[in-house]
Amino acid sequence: MARKTKDGWSEHPARLLRVDDDFSLEQLDRRSTPGWTGTKQQGKEAAKARGPLLSELQERLFAHGRTGGTRSVLLVVQGMDTSGKGGVVRHVIGMVDPQGVALRAFGRPTEEELRHHYLWRVRKALPSGGYIGVFDRSHYEDVLVPRVEGLVEPEVWDKRYEEINKFEREVVDSGTTVIKVALMTSREEQGLRLMERLQRVDKHWKFDPADVDARRTWDDYQEAYADLFARTSTEVAPWYVIPADRKWYSRLAVTELLTRALIDLDLSWPKPRWKVETQQRRLAETMEEATLAEAERSAKKVRRKVEEDEKAFAAAVARART
Amino acid sequence: MARKTKDGWSEHPARLLRVDDDFSLEQLDRRSTPGWTGTKQQGKEAAKARGPLLSELQERLFAHGRTGGTRSVLLVVQGMDTSGKGGVVRHVIGMVDPQGVALRAFGRPTEEELRHHYLWRVRKALPSGGYIGVFDRSHYEDVLVPRVEGLVEPEVWDKRYEEINKFEREVVDSGTTVIKVALMTSREEQGLRLMERLQRVDKHWKFDPADVDARRTWDDYQEAYADLFARTSTEVAPWYVIPADRKWYSRLAVTELLTRALIDLDLSWPKPRWKVETQQRRLAETMEEATLAEAERSAKKVRRKVEEDEKAFAAAVARART
Repeated sequence: MARKTKDGWSEHPARLLRVDDDFSLEQLDRRSTPGWTGTKQQGKEAAKARGPLLSELQERLFAHGRTGGTRSVLLVVQGMDTSGKGGVVRHVIGMVDPQGVALRAFGRPTEEELRHHYLWRVRKALPSGGYIGVFDRSHYEDVLVPRVEGLVEPEVWDKRYEEINKFEREVVDSGTTVIKVALMTSREEQGLRLMERLQRVDKHWKFDPADVDARRTWDDYQEAYADLFARTSTEVAPWYVIPADRKWYSRLAVTELLTRALIDLDLSWPKPRWKVETQQRRLAETMEEATLAEAERSAKKVRRKVEEDEKAFAAAVARART
Repeated sequence: MARKTKDGWSEHPARLLRVDDDFSLEQLDRRSTPGWTGTKQQGKEAAKARGPLLSELQERLFAHGRTGGTRSVLLVVQGMDTSGKGGVVRHVIGMVDPQGVALRAFGRPTEEELRHHYLWRVRKALPSGGYIGVFDRSHYEDVLVPRVEGLVEPEVWDKRYEEINKFEREVVDSGTTVIKVALMTSREEQGLRLMERLQRVDKHWKFDPADVDARRTWDDYQEAYADLFARTSTEVAPWYVIPADRKWYSRLAVTELLTRALIDLDLSWPKPRWKVETQQRRLAETMEEATLAEAERSAKKVRRKVEEDEKAFAAAVARART
């Protein structure tokens, strides 16, 4: 029985959603909300409430990047049309400073991209130290589209799984935490979402007549996804398969996965390479006496605020870990 | 006397902050809050309250870009160290979907960039149709740093002003609305902000000992800025000089400038190039009867919601225009 915890999770979604040997895509209930014991409204609130913590974690990561740190995070978002990839980016990534985000949407490859190895454009988009990279679709399209559409011979796409595993190991070894999430909706839900797009003049721009044709290959894509999860969910870069018929749940789950990944980087504020006292003295020499007195008056208050923030952060991290 | 309006502005900041022939940087009160009749707290709330409107305007712009539209917006943010450029990006741009933002920070040019014309890297970073581009620093650094630091001969930087005006005219002609904002703090305020960075372990990463040295050239930079405003505030791409000693004001003012620019694009939802009825019929053929019945049941509610949203949007635009 699910143990109800104070923040609404019976168990951390990272454990529940991770693809392991027992995973079966066919048996996934896409309307389910694994681990969440609260209501939809509580789920929405819980996701939003992560904002300040997520934001501070991102700033700490960024601070490390600015002071020579090479660690980064890469969120890979996969899913069929209307699965809610855009909403995840908007609502989860939208909570942190856009300056620390390196977002890349991978559409149909351009002429130039086709002249290169399929990982060429992916490598170029990897996040630098300090950044949260986000891939809206990714190199996984290269074991989905060509396979289902029969664009290349089976032996071409077949060897890509191992190539991708090797590539991701390199990425992880270079200091990037890779979080791969697949938003899986049911075919019925996709039908409903497409129909809603057709009913709404403010969503017409998101609709493409080709989306309807693509529904004919639904089963082939599901099979390709199942294979992909089985072959590329590795120890260093596992897949998290997220039931996505309920948008609020998929956003909440991705929020938790990202928060957890950042917490696991164990980020304290980087130490300066210069002496604080020396710099304060140098700076003081450039300031008028009255301004300097003002700075001294507020110094104590400032330090107390920082201490309080630090305590609140540590407490929030401890809570998020349980 | 300032006429107090319901939303707190006596006059739109676009009119008050725009650099015209009478503008004098020397006389700018950098603690002032031109046009704002409310309190600091009200100012913060007003900026935050712009979120939904700004967000919808951005989505409409993006929708146009996705359907072949070539219009875009470019926000150029200039200012000295600690002037609050990062905060503007975080708080103003942070209100819209990160997927519609093309953010570029221009640091010291790289080796490769130095081998090209100074506008080379700038052209590459211009926003595509549908995007809000953001430049954190910009080509204006090329009439500031080389001039003040004496890196090139005066005739080299001197001809750049006209070159920049010509370049920006091209950018505007190609469909981009250019909003140039300069955040101007006082030297005292800069001293206080640097001192605070030294007092806070969570801000040490933002401090660079070179920032103290740069204060020695403060007057030279101010002179270079004054010249820049006089020579590059054009009809098609005017400068808005924003008193920035109060962070809440500069964020609020930039929010209003951006909102206004987007409103002026007069964005209605793009019309589809396919027939709604045809696509609904095609889609229906791929759906089960029960799902289809569900979609039909919600159709009326969906349409009513869209109509209400449209009315609310029109009203918000009308209010923001006054």
